[in-house]
Order: sequence, then structure tokens, then C-alpha cells
Amino acid sequence: MVETEAAGGIRRMAHALRFLAADAVEAAKSGHPGMPLGMADLAAVLFSRHLKFDAARPDWADRDRFVLSNGHGSMLLYGLLHLTGYPGVGLDELKQFRRAHARAAGHPEYRHFPGIETTTGPLGQGIATAVGMALAERMMNARFGDELVDHRTYVFCGDGCLMEGISQEAISLAGHLRLSRLTVIFDDNGTTIDGPTAVSTSDDQVKRFEASNWAAIAVDGHDPEAIDAALRCARASDRPTLIAARTRIGFGAPTKEGRSVVHGSPLGEAELAGLRQALDWPYPAFEIPSDIAEAWRAVGRRGETESAAWRRRLDQAEPARRAEFERRTAGLLPQGLKAAVEAALAALAETPQAIPVRQASRDAVGLLSRHMPEMTGGSADLTSSVLSQAEGMSPLAPGAFAGSHVAYGIREHAMAAALNGMALHGGLLPYGATYLTFSDYCRPSIRLAALMGIRVVFLFTHDSIGVGEDGPTHQPVEQLASLRAIPGLKVYRPADAVEALECWYDAVAGTGPSVMVAARQKVEPVRLAPASQMLSRRGAYVLAEAEGPRDVTLLATGSEVSLAVAARDLLAGRGVAAAVVSMPCWERFAEQPADYRRSVLGAAPRFAVEAASPFGWTRFVPDEDHVFGVTGFGFSGPGPEVYRSFGLTPEGIAARVLEALGRPATAE
Amino acid sequence: MVETEAAGGIRRMAHALRFLAADAVEAAKSGHPGMPLGMADLAAVLFSRHLKFDAARPDWADRDRFVLSNGHGSMLLYGLLHLTGYPGVGLDELKQFRRAHARAAGHPEYRHFPGIETTTGPLGQGIATAVGMALAERMMNARFGDELVDHRTYVFCGDGCLMEGISQEAISLAGHLRLSRLTVIFDDNGTTIDGPTAVSTSDDQVKRFEASNWAAIAVDGHDPEAIDAALRCARASDRPTLIAARTRIGFGAPTKEGRSVVHGSPLGEAELAGLRQALDWPYPAFEIPSDIAEAWRAVGRRGETESAAWRRRLDQAEPARRAEFERRTAGLLPQGLKAAVEAALAALAETPQAIPVRQASRDAVGLLSRHMPEMTGGSADLTSSVLSQAEGMSPLAPGAFAGSHVAYGIREHAMAAALNGMALHGGLLPYGATYLTFSDYCRPSIRLAALMGIRVVFLFTHDSIGVGEDGPTHQPVEQLASLRAIPGLKVYRPADAVEALECWYDAVAGTGPSVMVAARQKVEPVRLAPASQMLSRRGAYVLAEAEGPRDVTLLATGSEVSLAVAARDLLAGRGVAAAVVSMPCWERFAEQPADYRRSVLGAAPRFAVEAASPFGWTRFVPDEDHVFGVTGFGFSGPGPEVYRSFGLTPEGIAARVLEALGRPATAE
Repeated sequence: MVETEAAGGIRRMAHALRFLAADAVEAAKSGHPGMPLGMADLAAVLFSRHLKFDAARPDWADRDRFVLSNGHGSMLLYGLLHLTGYPGVGLDELKQFRRAHARAAGHPEYRHFPGIETTTGPLGQGIATAVGMALAERMMNARFGDELVDHRTYVFCGDGCLMEGISQEAISLAGHLRLSRLTVIFDDNGTTIDGPTAVSTSDDQVKRFEASNWAAIAVDGHDPEAIDAALRCARASDRPTLIAARTRIGFGAPTKEGRSVVHGSPLGEAELAGLRQALDWPYPAFEIPSDIAEAWRAVGRRGETESAAWRRRLDQAEPARRAEFERRTAGLLPQGLKAAVEAALAALAETPQAIPVRQASRDAVGLLSRHMPEMTGGSADLTSSVLSQAEGMSPLAPGAFAGSHVAYGIREHAMAAALNGMALHGGLLPYGATYLTFSDYCRPSIRLAALMGIRVVFLFTHDSIGVGEDGPTHQPVEQLASLRAIPGLKVYRPADAVEALECWYDAVAGTGPSVMVAARQKVEPVRLAPASQMLSRRGAYVLAEAEGPRDVTLLATGSEVSLAVAARDLLAGRGVAAAVVSMPCWERFAEQPADYRRSVLGAAPRFAVEAASPFGWTRFVPDEDHVFGVTGFGFSGPGPEVYRSFGLTPEGIAARVLEALGRPATAE
Repeated sequence: MVETEAAGGIRRMAHALRFLAADAVEAAKSGHPGMPLGMADLAAVLFSRHLKFDAARPDWADRDRFVLSNGHGSMLLYGLLHLTGYPGVGLDELKQFRRAHARAAGHPEYRHFPGIETTTGPLGQGIATAVGMALAERMMNARFGDELVDHRTYVFCGDGCLMEGISQEAISLAGHLRLSRLTVIFDDNGTTIDGPTAVSTSDDQVKRFEASNWAAIAVDGHDPEAIDAALRCARASDRPTLIAARTRIGFGAPTKEGRSVVHGSPLGEAELAGLRQALDWPYPAFEIPSDIAEAWRAVGRRGETESAAWRRRLDQAEPARRAEFERRTAGLLPQGLKAAVEAALAALAETPQAIPVRQASRDAVGLLSRHMPEMTGGSADLTSSVLSQAEGMSPLAPGAFAGSHVAYGIREHAMAAALNGMALHGGLLPYGATYLTFSDYCRPSIRLAALMGIRVVFLFTHDSIGVGEDGPTHQPVEQLASLRAIPGLKVYRPADAVEALECWYDAVAGTGPSVMVAARQKVEPVRLAPASQMLSRRGAYVLAEAEGPRDVTLLATGSEVSLAVAARDLLAGRGVAAAVVSMPCWERFAEQPADYRRSVLGAAPRFAVEAASPFGWTRFVPDEDHVFGVTGFGFSGPGPEVYRSFGLTPEGIAARVLEALGRPATAE
């Protein structure tokens, strides 16, 4: 092959990426050199000729998004950010690769460097997150027009990402929505950790993507002009595009190229020297020849003019439109929202109604979204059950991106990751819904939301054995505990309409991710008096104080709060003064001052009431015998009967409390 | 279309299924009539002409397996079992559909009726479980030959199953392994809960399956002869086969056919009457005309001769081979295993070595599998990291099913479901491995294993922040708590080689599912003296008693037990008598008598040491301040440094214990 001058230049620029990666891995004595060596040519062509970005302004809202789904190749990304001149990505940072607390972490972590659009590492997450970004771009475009929103999303991924099931959900969703501005570049190197891909897969990826309404092109991933041509095709396509790029893992490594061994370990001194020789790269570690360094800097400045023109357009936009664009992309609440919520809370307290909590949740979203058009809903094919589509929300459809409710299909995992992508993209406040028991399908993406601290709301209805006849496969039991175990995640379980609105407001007013858990069944309202403050925002509060000194405190959440209130009345009739504490959010409660927590919990014996596994409640009660919950799995049958069989009735609760307090079991 | 007589008969047999389903749903006032009405013709043809079974002998090991992946259509399955005469599936049982504790539960539950091969309901699980069954069939065939093992696996599924990501993993794995005896019958009715499938998907399923090395046939799902021909093709194929059967959901319902509304609600009186008229079915609810009932009984007896011949072959088999076949399919331990384990434990205690727990786990599996060739390993493309392939285990490959280690590829979720399918099939003792943080990807299948109570071992290595440089995406924190929260699941976290073997033995000697959690890093051995009993099997035990009365008790698991032992030594130097309790399995400990539990835990102040979220430890300690654990997520850096930063060192533990006990912080 006769290389053009341009291709030759690109190749040397790619080598700079290769050696930054290989040398940093070598210095760290751990890491993944194989992917950066293999994908460097693809990265060099994408960044130098296609990606719309301005390294000096990594927060430019209209930049193209680049997602490294195969996050173990993090050094490729760090090298790109460094060479193109992203602020704060100095050589010293790269030299700290994989050291304790280094910003150049083992896998790319959101907020560690500007230009890291999302945390990746768990395979398949990046591609699904990118689908959310690409969808957000079209939605923002439908709201603010081409002059403010007109960019693309590029993903690098490997065999691992494409073998993970979440990728199928993401691909299928993107193809259906015709997200033509999404391009996936597949590192088709025929290798996984266990050996050649032939050990574990026989998939025809091109055909697979085509089956999901994608364009698909196979190219030589080491031929810059071929890569360039494929990227041009992708930009012209009316469908999302797969570029299956045949590459050699560990490109250039004399004995390790093309072999699994180069995936996840340093090359070693001799092999690295051999690589230098093979690629004609005589420079020491971390030294980039000035012509190549300058060429990369120029790449970093490629978007300067365009980003300046964009800022001018924003400056010249109609002021209200500009302010709204800026508010939404900054994730700020609109003025007047809190007052509107407080007024609505007062009205709810005045006209209490027994409604399902899921319906209360829908009403809360309806109110919020009237003030916050950035609220973007959706469900995994359960819209009429989870009540995710609030009044005034229109369905989104392929080519009709002005809608604000997404039909994610039966793709819970990709939905959760897409929500993350929408939040990361900016301009939207995404939530998505399914049944609580299927939160298990979303878990890896929920974890990433928590790790990144992004504002996403995962709405899970049908939240207990109250689901009834559908039986134990559909009755969550351990999900509340396992979600509460995730660091940095707020888990709300409101008891009625007032709490639902308070919790929703708290979720959208915060910065991190939330899980909103809502009962399917109708519940008696418990918050009957207007409060001067949104009590749920404290996480737990005394809903009903005991008459006189407390004999016992009943802690409860969600649909079981009204049960606890009824039990309190029964206990009062037996001369036992019980307080009821509603605990809609443990995590918010943990943030309160110790004095407040002590006063709420009280010194009297405590019992917990929650139709779920007792696991974790020992944080508040002495042992699991003090929990009215669900031990083991539930069973199929009418919801009230299932509740009864677990002793979850006012009578059952009162009787066991009396027994525990040593009070006579018969009437006095 | 002129119907043949046979087709006409089949059609009326299908109607019997339709009305049993529609009437049972009507009586229950909840349930899913749409799928049984739509798939009844497919079921009638499959059962009456292809499925190898003998209703009177549902435990015939060489029967074909039938999996209803779209489990909401449970009444279709119950109707089939009833009409073909499975023991104990009487009309009275069907009339109890969805009542509290009914065996005819909302979704099919394993063990509720013979003939329910697996619990289904959570979409996508059935198809992936069936892949495990089909793989198990080939593996057992490779071990016992055609005369004992020669059957097929059939799956019914809908759009939901095929949209779930797990289905892609399963399809891709099955196509790669060329599991030609697997046939998936797709209820291609163009409808999901949210409306026409066009609302959420544009996939070409035939092309998608072909891309994964399947044969695929599209047919009219209401044409018995076409269905029959497709099933014949499937049986002739050298690849797994998709039959995409175009059907009408709610077939025959005058106003609801073809609409989402018929999916999940009773038809209602008038619609049901209209259905009777449309299908010319004048019989009252639950009444089957005698000719049709007799035709179905004959179907149930179709396999009598074949099953009798099979039993003769088994009876005539070489006695040792027959005994081994029967032992494995019954899931019994071989004689002499326990003694061999005890001897190995004694040897390990005599020559303690500091090795990674994952390596100890591999060695334990090596020992067990020498005695139990039914042990079948595998990993999700991490074989050399998780050390899942024990000595003597050869890799399984397409067409080479004598192997016993499966390369599942980067498909954690399908791996977990396939393990379930192998266990359900019988004859194998399956385990599969990935990193603990990716247990999140497996969770819905782990839950089903727990719900079914089947013997599967999920092996999760790289079990803490000790993973180090790969950072928080790869460092599990909350996974231990969230796995412990699953009812019916044993979570083991052994501390060294002795405990690893004890825990593995306990897992395989039990009946339910287990999670085996193993540290990546090297740990100091803690069990230095041979014990007359396998202490780990009690779940927790006093590893090192205090010298004199206990001042404090340190509870620890896994790699932190040796830390606790070292802290105990430091405390002893400061005059504090600490006991160390190793707790490899909370669930087994909970089964012990109260006296034993009290004596192990003791009355002295307790602290817990585990490099994970403190969530749940309040079962044993007063509050989370008494846990040496990981609050929040970890970070990228060398493992020992990450440990140190969370205070997880002997010195850090001793200092905080001294402070809590009010002992002076400086040397006495």
C-alpha cells in the first residue's frame, strides 16, 4: 500500500497514542495495552477529521460526544485528551495512571478529566449510554433547533460490549428510533480474554446490526483512508451506523500482536522495545516529537471557529429561549417551582384521597413537568401499568423527537443506561419506569448512575407482594434492601400523594440518582394536615406522635405506613402509646443531624413495617424479629391475602407488638 | 383454505386449550388470555406430533424439554398438562388458578406441577434457561450415549423475551455451540403491552437469528400443517432453529383479537361469549367434549412405548454405568467424597500456604470434580482470572461436548440462566464464574435459582476493593449485601484454602443455589489446625478464642479474616482479649441452634471486618460504626493502598477498637 502523506501523518499521530498508552501501562505495572495499540488509527482519524470538538471548551453543549465503551482501553482516551490539549490533562497526570487517587484511573471515570463523557468499564454500558446521548441530541434538537443542537455521538467498543445483552437492547432501540447520528466503531480484532473469539462466538455482527435497522460497513481498521471513508458514509446515513473495523490487538507488538495476552497486561520491557523498533518510534517514554505534538494540538483547535460561531448564535438567540437553554443544560430548577409544589401539597392535604401510589407518582410528575419541560419519561413496555406518562406528555417516536415519553420496549437494562446517557448529555431530566422486581435487570446501570452522581430517576412500581396474583417472580422482596445497599443512591418509597410529590421534588431538586418506588395498590392517605415543610425531604419524620410518652415506635415506609397508622389506633385502644415514623428515604434521613435522628427514632422499643425483606432494617431495630416484613419469597394470590399471610395487617401488627411488650393478649 | 381432517382435529384440540385458559382467567378475574389464545395451535401441533414425552412419567430423563418462556401464558401450559394427563393436574387445580397458594400460580412455578420444567415470568429467562438445558442434553449425550440421552428442547417465547438483552446472549451462545436440538417458537403477534410492536421495535428477527448461526423459518402460526412442516425442518437442522410464527394475539376474540388489551386482562363475559360463538365452542367453562378429551389423552400416551423402551435400555445397561447415570440425574453425592474432602482438609491444615482464595477455590473444585465428573464449569471470558477451569477439566467446544468447562463468552446473564437450565435438566452440577461486581449482570437469574431452590454455584472472584487498579467499576462494594438479601441463597466467602474446600463441599452437598465469593489477592492462611468437623458448614465459628474472658469479638469474612487475626494479636499486646469469629456463610449460621449462635457471637462488644458495604452487618453489631468496611465506592489504585485508605489494616482496626473500648491510644 502506498500511503498518502496525510495517511502517513495520521499514522504517526496514532503512534503517539500507542506509545502514551503502552508506556503508561508499563509504568503502572498494570493496565490494558492491547486495545489502544489496536484502535489508535481509528481514534486518530476520528479525532482529526470528524469529531466536532474544541479541546479548550470541553463543556461546549453542541460538541460531538465520544464514548469509550471498551473502557479498559482508558489510556487511549487519556492520550487523546492530553494530546489535543484538554485543560488539566497534563503529562504528569498520565504518568500517575492507575496510582492511588490518580485522575487517570484504571477505567475512565466521569468528572476525572473533561472529555470523559461517561464512566465506562462494565462492558456494554458505554454503547447503551451513548444511545441515550444520541436520543437526547435529537430531543434537544427538536426543542431548540439546528442552530443550537446539531451534533453526533461516536462509540468505540469491542467484542465484549457486543456480546453483552445490553448491547442488543441498545442497538435495537437505536435502530428503531433511527438515531442516524450515532456511530459505533467496533474493534473487530477477533480476540477476547479467553482466546480467539472463535472460542465463544460465531456472530456475524454486520448482519446482526442490519437486522436492527442499522447501516453497517466493514473496513480495515488500520487503513486511515478507509476509516475516513467509512466515517463519511456514517455521517451521510439516515440510520445509525456500525463500522466493523478489522484490527490487530496489540498492533505492532512483535510477539504479542493478535494474541489475548496483550489485552490486559503490560507488554514488558523487551516487547515494548520491540514495539518501538517495529513502529520506528525512537523516542523515550512520554516524549512526543514536536511535529506530532503540534499536529495533535491543531486537531484540538479544529473546532474553535465552529464553537465560537455556536456561542454567537446562543448569544444572539431570543433571550428567553437562550435562558431556557442555559437553565436546562445547567440542570437548574425553574423559578417558582418550589412554590407551585408547596401549593399543590397544601391542596393534596386538604382533599386526601385513597389512590395507588403509582398514580400519585404520575400526578407528581405531571405537576413537575408542567414547570420543567426537560422532564423526559418512558417505560419498558408498561406505560399503562407504571403510569409513567404524565398528563401533557406526548409519545416520542422515530423522527418525532418533540415527544417526551419514550417507549423503551421490553429493554429495562438499555432503558436505565439510556437514562444515564440523557442525563450526561444534558438538557433533559430523564426518568424511566418498570416494575420493582425488574430493577434487577437495570442494576449495572443504576450502579453507574450512583458512581457518577448524575440526576436520573428510576421509577419502580408494583413494589411488593401487593402485586398479588402474578406471584413471586413479579413480587419484589429483596429489591429494596439491595437498592439501599448501593452507595450514593437515594431510594424513596412514598406513602401517599403528599409524600409522592415531596419525594419527587426532592429527587429532581437533588444532584444524584434516585429510585422512586411506588405501590401498585390503593393506599389510605396518611398526610392529612398541611405541613410548613416538606417532611419527606428529611428522609424520616414523626407522622403521628404517641399520645403521651411513647411505649413503642412503629417505623414504616410506603404502602405500609397506613397499616402502621391503623395498628397505632388498635394499640391505643389497648392502652399502648405508639408513634408512627414514616421513613420514605433512609439515605436522606442519614444526612440529618444526630439530634433530629434521635428525636424521630425515640428511645422506646421500635418495630419496622415494610412488605419486603427485613434485611438491613437492623440499622433501626434490634433484630429481624422486630420487622413486620416478608421472610422468603411471596406467592401467587390476591394481594390482600398475601399480605395477611405474612401478618401484614393492623391486627397482626398490633398483636405481635403487644406480645413483644409483654401486654396481655386479650382485651383488658 | 381447505383443512385436512387432521388439521381440523388439531384445531379443535387447540380450542380446548384456548377455553381452559380464557375461562380460568375469567374465573380468577386476572391473568393473561391473549397468549394462550394466540399460541394454542402451535402448542397443539408441538405436543401432538413432535414433543417426546409420556405424561404418566414426567420425570423420564430422556423426555423432550418444553419451556414456556413467555410465562404469563401459564394457563396454556396448565391446560396442556391437564389435558395430556400429567399426574395431579386435575380440573380442580386449574379452577384454583391464581387463588392464594394455588399450584396453578400466576406464572409457572417449578415443582408446582410435574411438567413445569422451570419457573418463568421474568422475560428472557426461559429462553436462556433452555439453552442450558439443550447444552446439558448434549453433554449428557457425550457421557452416556444416544441410547440414554437423545432428546430436544422447545421454547415458546414472545416479543418480550426477544427484546430482553439476555435473549441475545442466549441466542448467540446457542448458535455458536450449534445446539441443533434447540427450537425456539416465537409468538410473532406484532403486539406488546404498549401497543403494536411498531411502537418500540423494528427488528428483523429472522435475520437476527441467522446472524447468530441459527436456522430461521417464518410460518403462519395458525396453520397446523405449516407449523408441522416447520417443526420437521427444525428437527432436521444442524443448527438451532427459530420458528417465527405469525399469530393473532387473543385469537378468536371478536373485538379484542390483535390488540394489546387482550394481553393481560380477562376477556369479560360478553367477549368470552363472543369467542365461544366465533370458535363454535358451545361447551360451558371447564367442560371439554369427550372426543377432544380422549384425543388429548392419547397425545399424553404417545410416548409410552418409547419411554418403556428407554427404561429397558437403562435396566439393561452395564450396572456401574446405570448406577452412575442414576446417581447423577438424582443429584446424589458419590460415596467416599466426604472422606476424601476430610483427608484433603487435614493435608491443607498441615501445610498452610498464602495463596489467593480464587486459587484455593480452583483447587477445591479440582478435588470435588475428580470424584464428581458431573461438575461442569465455565466462565464469562475470564477463565485465567477467575480460575474456573480446575485441573483435569477440558474445554467444551461446538461438537465436542465431552468437555466440562464452557467458554460462555462475555455473557454473564445467559451464563447464569444456562447454569439454571443445566441444573434443571439434571445430570450435571453446574457452576460458572465472573467477577463479583458483575454479579449484578446475573442477578435476575440468580433470583430464579433461589426461587426454584436448585443446586447451582455462582462463583464470583475479585471480590472487593482488593481488585485495586481497575477501580470502582470493578471493585464490588454493595454486592455482598445485595446477594445476602436474596431469600434462599447461600453466600459463601471463604477465608483460606481450608474454608474454600469446606464451603465448596457444603455448596455441592446442599440442595439450593450458592454464591461462592473468592478474593483475587493472596491471603494468609487462618485455619492452621485440623478440625474434626468442617467448621465452615456451621456458617460461623470461633476461629481464635480470646485469651481469657472476651473483651471484644471481631467478626470477619473472607480475605479480612486474616486481618482480624492480626488485629487480635495487636490487641493482645495492648491487654485486650479479642476473639475472632470467621463467618463464611451467614445463611448457614442462621440455621444453627440459638445456643450455638449465642456462644459464637458472645456477649462482649462486637465489631465486623469486611471490605464491603456495612449494609446488613447491623444484624450482628449495634451500628455501622462498628463495621470496618467500605463506605461509598472504592477508587483506582494498588489494592493494598485502597485497603489502607479505608482503615482496613490490623493497625487501623486495633486502633479504632481500642478507642471504642475507651482504652488509651498510646502504649501502656
